[in-house]
Amino acid sequence: MSEPPVSLHGVRLVVAYDGADFAGWQEQPAQRTVQSVLEEAISSMAGHAVKVRGAGRTDSGVHAEGQVAAFDAVRLIPPRGWMLGINRLLPVDLAVRAAFECAPGYNPRYDALDKLYRYVLLLGDPRDPHWRGRAWHVARVHTDGDGSRRHDLDALRAGAARLVGTHDFGAFRAADDERAVTVRTIHDIQVLPTYLGHPDLLAIEVRGTAFLKQMVRILVGTLLEVGRGKRAPESLSALLVPGAARGSAGITAPAHGLTMVRVRLGKKDAERAAAGEP
Amino acid sequence: MSEPPVSLHGVRLVVAYDGADFAGWQEQPAQRTVQSVLEEAISSMAGHAVKVRGAGRTDSGVHAEGQVAAFDAVRLIPPRGWMLGINRLLPVDLAVRAAFECAPGYNPRYDALDKLYRYVLLLGDPRDPHWRGRAWHVARVHTDGDGSRRHDLDALRAGAARLVGTHDFGAFRAADDERAVTVRTIHDIQVLPTYLGHPDLLAIEVRGTAFLKQMVRILVGTLLEVGRGKRAPESLSALLVPGAARGSAGITAPAHGLTMVRVRLGKKDAERAAAGEP
Repeated sequence: MSEPPVSLHGVRLVVAYDGADFAGWQEQPAQRTVQSVLEEAISSMAGHAVKVRGAGRTDSGVHAEGQVAAFDAVRLIPPRGWMLGINRLLPVDLAVRAAFECAPGYNPRYDALDKLYRYVLLLGDPRDPHWRGRAWHVARVHTDGDGSRRHDLDALRAGAARLVGTHDFGAFRAADDERAVTVRTIHDIQVLPTYLGHPDLLAIEVRGTAFLKQMVRILVGTLLEVGRGKRAPESLSALLVPGAARGSAGITAPAHGLTMVRVRLGKKDAERAAAGEP
Repeated sequence: MSEPPVSLHGVRLVVAYDGADFAGWQEQPAQRTVQSVLEEAISSMAGHAVKVRGAGRTDSGVHAEGQVAAFDAVRLIPPRGWMLGINRLLPVDLAVRAAFECAPGYNPRYDALDKLYRYVLLLGDPRDPHWRGRAWHVARVHTDGDGSRRHDLDALRAGAARLVGTHDFGAFRAADDERAVTVRTIHDIQVLPTYLGHPDLLAIEVRGTAFLKQMVRILVGTLLEVGRGKRAPESLSALLVPGAARGSAGITAPAHGLTMVRVRLGKKDAERAAAGEP
């Protein structure tokens, strides 16, 4: 006897989290991960085991403002009802920010046009208690005539410009990343001093199609060395060739400065349009 | 035998803190307060007991970006040296952001031209993990045609305009505040929707000469009722008269949404200039 077919309802969520106490997005045995905490809450509300499909894996300690996650449920509940219900079951460091209907089986990972990551640096001697878990505090290095120290923004921007485009980013990934293809495309890098009006904050926003493991953090660690005058901006081009060693790039900036800001969706629509489908 | 006169050196600090784990600014027995943690660090560096004079007392749980504190020390250390040294001795939720020389005995409280406070509200159904300790999360109330809910910004701004000026704010203070004079001047109130580009954040910035205990938080609690349509903006004028009861104003907004943003100094200079002194 076969089971009668069950019709499933797809739901797409925009999810935000403070990454400090999560072992990253992806489910792992005996670890508190975003995916597992989310699946537990949604399964409890759905009344059956639910698997959540994320747009991208974030590493341990990395934050998100706009991670995208989708799941299928038997019960038909309006998106707003899912949002309110799930949020009541989630801990304070994780929340659903928006909810939408989607096709059952919808996988945001395959529908992502691009992703935007933001890395925030706190440059200067004084610490800032309000940014302690969200910005990497690094001392200034260049000494100006007046004794103050600053980073070389022009050099940093020139270095960033070298990274934009389609390159082999094999030197910019964690040692345990074993993906065969290391060519990726970065659409844009924005260097934003006095971020949010704060005199000591510098944000680096990186937008790209897909990223290797720890790629944004290694890009930031390398760019910081350019800003400090330890590397010439032009020297970065030599790192973007097949076979360049991880050791030739800069250090991995710590996870707590990184936030997945948003995922732009619509790849499937774009592909359908390109194929002349309605 | 009398002690030889000791020459003292004055230092003025700009101090930032996350108020969550402090029982406010002012020293109290057996409590972790900003003043006592600061005095312990400075005394340790100075090599003698140091008293710190603050520009204003913040309540338990209230944050600061730009509190001002001054002290006198026997040792002559450059301001930057004080900043770096004190920060090494302070916990992660408290830091010196800037340091300057000042006259010994300088008291920022008597030199403050005005103070700026910011209250941040998170309006809307979804929580936001990144603002959980810094914004008061309140549900939206007005229902628009599309089922979404919003606050009435125009009413909120009209209510705020009623509060600006010199009034008796006796109805807007904590029950245990026993100051004899309750007349205060509010120079300006800014209502800032989509604060920092966040769609659900609303900041209310209040600038005034001096404030009664919990005054800004009660102002915000009352304005929120105006934004929700529970009070008419015009009705606030009746609360600004001598003898108006605390119970006639709104609730006290929670401490964690409030930040002391900055203190504008220079009253002594202004007084000297007005008196024709150099």
